Amino acid sequence: MKIAFIGLGNMGLPMAKNLIKANFEVIGFDINTKAMDELQLSGGQTANTIAKVVAQVDVVITMLPASQHVENSYLATEGILNSVQPNTLLIDCSTIAPESAKKVADQANQRGFQMLDAPVSGGTAGAINGTLTFMVGGSKEILNQCMSLFQKMGKNIYHAGPNGCGQTVKVCNNMLLGILMLGTSEALKLGIANGMDPKILSEIMSKSSGRNWALEVYNPCPNVMDNTPASNQYQGGFGVDLMLKDLGLATENAMSVGASIPLGELARNMFNLHSKSGNGKLDFSSIFNLLP
Amino acid sequence: MKIAFIGLGNMGLPMAKNLIKANFEVIGFDINTKAMDELQLSGGQTANTIAKVVAQVDVVITMLPASQHVENSYLATEGILNSVQPNTLLIDCSTIAPESAKKVADQANQRGFQMLDAPVSGGTAGAINGTLTFMVGGSKEILNQCMSLFQKMGKNIYHAGPNGCGQTVKVCNNMLLGILMLGTSEALKLGIANGMDPKILSEIMSKSSGRNWALEVYNPCPNVMDNTPASNQYQGGFGVDLMLKDLGLATENAMSVGASIPLGELARNMFNLHSKSGNGKLDFSSIFNLLP
Amino acid sequence: MKIAFIGLGNMGLPMAKNLIKANFEVIGFDINTKAMDELQLSGGQTANTIAKVVAQVDVVITMLPASQHVENSYLATEGILNSVQPNTLLIDCSTIAPESAKKVADQANQRGFQMLDAPVSGGTAGAINGTLTFMVGGSKEILNQCMSLFQKMGKNIYHAGPNGCGQTVKVCNNMLLGILMLGTSEALKLGIANGMDPKILSEIMSKSSGRNWALEVYNPCPNVMDNTPASNQYQGGFGVDLMLKDLGLATENAMSVGASIPLGELARNMFNLHSKSGNGKLDFSSIFNLLP
Amino acid sequence: MKIAFIGLGNMGLPMAKNLIKANFEVIGFDINTKAMDELQLSGGQTANTIAKVVAQVDVVITMLPASQHVENSYLATEGILNSVQPNTLLIDCSTIAPESAKKVADQANQRGFQMLDAPVSGGTAGAINGTLTFMVGGSKEILNQCMSLFQKMGKNIYHAGPNGCGQTVKVCNNMLLGILMLGTSEALKLGIANGMDPKILSEIMSKSSGRNWALEVYNPCPNVMDNTPASNQYQGGFGVDLMLKDLGLATENAMSVGASIPLGELARNMFNLHSKSGNGKLDFSSIFNLLP
Repeated sequence: MKIAFIGLGNMGLPMAKNLIKANFEVIGFDINTKAMDELQLSGGQTANTIAKVVAQVDVVITMLPASQHVENSYLATEGILNSVQPNTLLIDCSTIAPESAKKVADQANQRGFQMLDAPVSGGTAGAINGTLTFMVGGSKEILNQCMSLFQKMGKNIYHAGPNGCGQTVKVCNNMLLGILMLGTSEALKLGIANGMDPKILSEIMSKSSGRNWALEVYNPCPNVMDNTPASNQYQGGFGVDLMLKDLGLATENAMSVGASIPLGELARNMFNLHSKSGNGKLDFSSIFNLLP
Repeated sequence: MKIAFIGLGNMGLPMAKNLIKANFEVIGFDINTKAMDELQLSGGQTANTIAKVVAQVDVVITMLPASQHVENSYLATEGILNSVQPNTLLIDCSTIAPESAKKVADQANQRGFQMLDAPVSGGTAGAINGTLTFMVGGSKEILNQCMSLFQKMGKNIYHAGPNGCGQTVKVCNNMLLGILMLGTSEALKLGIANGMDPKILSEIMSKSSGRNWALEVYNPCPNVMDNTPASNQYQGGFGVDLMLKDLGLATENAMSVGASIPLGELARNMFNLHSKSGNGKLDFSSIFNLLP
Repeated sequence: MKIAFIGLGNMGLPMAKNLIKANFEVIGFDINTKAMDELQLSGGQTANTIAKVVAQVDVVITMLPASQHVENSYLATEGILNSVQPNTLLIDCSTIAPESAKKVADQANQRGFQMLDAPVSGGTAGAINGTLTFMVGGSKEILNQCMSLFQKMGKNIYHAGPNGCGQTVKVCNNMLLGILMLGTSEALKLGIANGMDPKILSEIMSKSSGRNWALEVYNPCPNVMDNTPASNQYQGGFGVDLMLKDLGLATENAMSVGASIPLGELARNMFNLHSKSGNGKLDFSSIFNLLP
Repeated sequence: MKIAFIGLGNMGLPMAKNLIKANFEVIGFDINTKAMDELQLSGGQTANTIAKVVAQVDVVITMLPASQHVENSYLATEGILNSVQPNTLLIDCSTIAPESAKKVADQANQRGFQMLDAPVSGGTAGAINGTLTFMVGGSKEILNQCMSLFQKMGKNIYHAGPNGCGQTVKVCNNMLLGILMLGTSEALKLGIANGMDPKILSEIMSKSSGRNWALEVYNPCPNVMDNTPASNQYQGGFGVDLMLKDLGLATENAMSVGASIPLGELARNMFNLHSKSGNGKLDFSSIFNLLP
């Protein structure tokens, strides 16, 4: 099976390498030629246009920064839909707007192609270790047929529903995560201001109804847990600006479908204040420090 | 051991009954005489003033609606501190302001009494079944000495720190719970507006970083989980007005200690809108219905 | 002087009629043929494509619902930029995203055309009576040259800065208006809940630092002022859904320029709750009724 | 006419001096003896307890920091109600909770005294120059009888309704002012981020529906207006911490009457973030700088 991989960034490159390691034939493309050089060193091929890369493959995987890049790559005159052979399977792993995912999939379907939207979570560590989580929108049968391909890059592969549902799950989950992180920070800071030990407070809430992923796994208060970004000067992890991007996607999506997300949009504004004060590259749990 | 129990409401009465069942000698008081009649039917004694009830006991337990009731009961001229014998242990199980708990405990300590603030979670079902969670502020030694007493009323008994810390944990946890419930509702409604099945969305988020108690245990969307208030017309459970009271305690506390709780106060306003539209007696997960 | 008028809706049609009354030669287009019939009855001409309408005119005015309509009308293959004669002046009176206004103006400028973005306020009454306010972005000289044209449709014509600034002023002003209306409603409802007469409260605040347009001119409380929508069951005026659209533009714009608008986005969510409860067609001051 | 003046701080002392200048006989009290010395230098008398100060006067005026000070001064065993002669008129000019004002006035009325709650706006400059605004709750007849007394200290004297209404107007107005200032800052920062000149943006919005006191009189953007704190490094004026106190009063009041003030409480949180970052003593228009 031959796979075209478009977008060889911090996430895409290690994903492509894991496919090479699993003995897939991989041909890659990125506007950054260094990334293409690195793919070659790992045993992959490259070509200098999207059209050439996707021309002779069984599967196209894209991993791009934002909606417009995905739309351009698939829909442009020299883009993927106009360049692939019939029966090529199309998989977009980018995190983009659900509307955009549906639009591209509709175009693909009309041209007779099967497409999956399959955004990931798990960060660069997950990409390198092949332990990503995939949330997949599109045909369940198609997903089952290529399950072994996904399993070379990830550990948990969920079918979320028809096209667009992969992106929808990602948007909803990450908006909720932003709320959990800010809400947990508010609770911990409130406790500390009352003289509580944040470690004890975290332990009791973790066994109570305040229990949540941010509190238990990724505690935003320094020295409450080992091995968290909070206990390492908020280095590494998932950056403030990435969370801000995802809260922006949630806000745009809420506007387009007529939903109200009052906590989600307030969290967006708080992460934006935090980012614009010079903290955009810190781990997103550093929102703890925005609060007095 | 003889125990005075002040406050025989929906929570206090079943807690007192559990102590009677465990062969403690219990003498109770409530301004509602029917509650006192019911305690007598269960084998308890009563008296018609707080002063008489607490005069000859080893332990006083109070379970009252709000800060002012607790302050009055302990600090009034005919109140508990002026009526008990030396060495009586004082335990307040009400949910009140941490500042108020500290104030009463300070007065008790100055008079030579040991006091614990020990608010509970678990609702009326927990009170009846003896499965409450206690969050206890005060001396750890004293708590350990009377642990068996708590274990007749509850299952999990946590020591939170010095006096006031029991209330602080309760306030922080329940504020966070209010945020979790509204945030989870926002995420689920956003997904539904995009065409997602809320059951699938809940399953995937429960295994991802959006994981939290409200989503996993107490899902606010009807028919996602069996045995939730949401799947039973939002009957039973923990009422909107109780959550509103706790978010009010968090807001007051934040103001008194100088903390910022932007999500917490926004949640308070949303639960207030919901309550004032006639939903105060529904389960608090019905906040799901406030969102379009 | 011959004018092409594209978009003959509730605002565009009366604006075009005012130009005809002032003896301009007007040729109009709308996808709704009834609107074109009505323009003809008023003495205007019509044609059945945008290309034909704009082919032989001195000025093109567009008044369209949203960014994508404006972009399509100007930039499509059969659109305005490809169909007008050299030296035709282009004026867009739609309320759209500042980014979109800049994009279209950039394309027009590159093709040698002068363009103004000139959104209006004043509603359908202002359009009919020729008393609109115009906020204009683009060259000040060009604006001065065609000032008499604007003065046939409006009363106050402000130059806001280079292209896009007309839309920016509109977005900023209307976001602030949404905040003023909700904030004023909160203050009045708080006063009423304390037993205040809202008329006296409004009078005193109007002479104090709480003074603002919503309070003084457009009071949201019924029967505080005559001739307000609030005193007429919230009929007429500026609809909830129009305010919601403008708060959505502000939110999109804030995300695109990296700004934080916490009150603006919270107002957006509250107007959305109100709209989705079935109040979208009421005047926007009815947000007063969302509050308990 | 002899007047007792309790509370000789930044506001109380110049108010008392203005009464002395107008030939009233003034006897003052403050826990700060320096303030009492200064009153003596200005021609006033003093005594070393509240009971002595109020014993032989026609009118008592109090100007104290917060609700608890007012309640203590009036209701304590050695307090005002127990120390004044029959027919003494009681006027509280402090800014306190409406509930607290009603409670003290109820006690006074039950003891046969007339009382007015009469909080002020206008700051220390208004106190010194005798140009304060008074918002008065209580009997209109009583207010009219002592109007000339108020006119020695202020310029605009409004009757707001029965007891408590003076405080209610103050709370509502200042909450609205906090919203206006933050909302205006959001609009101006959004415009600036789009490349607008804030002076032009302010001018146009001041003539449009975004018009409000903060924008027109007290513009938060430096160098848009002369003679504003914003154009003087946010020195002088009305401090962030005073606005924070008033937003706290609004929040407490909203909770006690069951009102929802979503924008008001969000503004409170933003001013708190700003204060705790070290800006508490700056003018409150410096909230402009919290936004990116």
